[in-house]
Amino acid sequence: MDNLKDILNFDSNAKPTSFKKGTIIQRAGEITSLAYYVKKGLLRSYTIDDKGKEHVFMFASEGWIIADLESQEFNRPTELFIDCIENSEILIFDRKSVVNLNLSNEQLLDYNRLLTRRIAVLQKRVIMLMSASAQNRYNFFLEMYPDIPNRVPQRMIASYLGITPQALSTIRAKIVKKYSS
Amino acid sequence: MDNLKDILNFDSNAKPTSFKKGTIIQRAGEITSLAYYVKKGLLRSYTIDDKGKEHVFMFASEGWIIADLESQEFNRPTELFIDCIENSEILIFDRKSVVNLNLSNEQLLDYNRLLTRRIAVLQKRVIMLMSASAQNRYNFFLEMYPDIPNRVPQRMIASYLGITPQALSTIRAKIVKKYSS
Repeated sequence: MDNLKDILNFDSNAKPTSFKKGTIIQRAGEITSLAYYVKKGLLRSYTIDDKGKEHVFMFASEGWIIADLESQEFNRPTELFIDCIENSEILIFDRKSVVNLNLSNEQLLDYNRLLTRRIAVLQKRVIMLMSASAQNRYNFFLEMYPDIPNRVPQRMIASYLGITPQALSTIRAKIVKKYSS
Repeated sequence: MDNLKDILNFDSNAKPTSFKKGTIIQRAGEITSLAYYVKKGLLRSYTIDDKGKEHVFMFASEGWIIADLESQEFNRPTELFIDCIENSEILIFDRKSVVNLNLSNEQLLDYNRLLTRRIAVLQKRVIMLMSASAQNRYNFFLEMYPDIPNRVPQRMIASYLGITPQALSTIRAKIVKKYSS
């Protein structure tokens, strides 16, 4: 992610902002091209369905970027809320401005690589949601977000996995049993 | 996609190949950096779960590219099979070679834009899988792939949506009823 930080430093408009835990920094329904680079803290993006139920789309800790690319690419109102799970320091930048920066070929290739990684992660997420057991989804989550499980309420992890908090609790109990027996 | 075609034309190694309907051109377990640009025809990527059940990850008709970026980015064996739903003409290229091409800034920005669109589509897919009704997922599928429903067996569409063929049949019957009443 260091390369991307270099890229972002080219954007003289980017400024770090502090947010208190619990602050909602983006709401569904907005049209926005802003993206958020996490310098410190932890953000979450989520959607709320017709029945009022929350579904966590992703978490973003130090070094991650969080944004609603879908809304930005297709000029639609965003479906994603973004809020702070911890007090956070965020570099807010306009995705559109990245395109206008005078980036070198090497920087563009770095950016390209970053986008490709994101596609790879989303591909895995789709395949897991379609075909993997809740247990395997949880294992992948731990691998993908090693620093996050202890920083996030269990109900949000369950929501990310698409299972009930009770099901997550059962899975965790099995893991504890496995390692203690 | 035209810009991407221009980009690919820079790769002198790219060659069109014909495949018969039913041919499997990539198998799960392989390590590969190949990607497939569809000149004519229709490809599908899918995974097979522990119970032997198929799950369609995506379809690719004329102008689309299909590949397993996840396996390529993280150097893991691919989880995806790719096969031909119709007789197809495919431009096979090595994703790695794109990085080595002497692309202009403008071409790299085009390529980045293409990757960003893919992220946007995958984001929507994840959100739909987590939070949308089967009916809404089908509507989005029709919007996303307008040329495909009549070219693909219903069971594959059901698999893409993560529902049973019976459930898809019920949804389609409701739509017919809505427009005929």
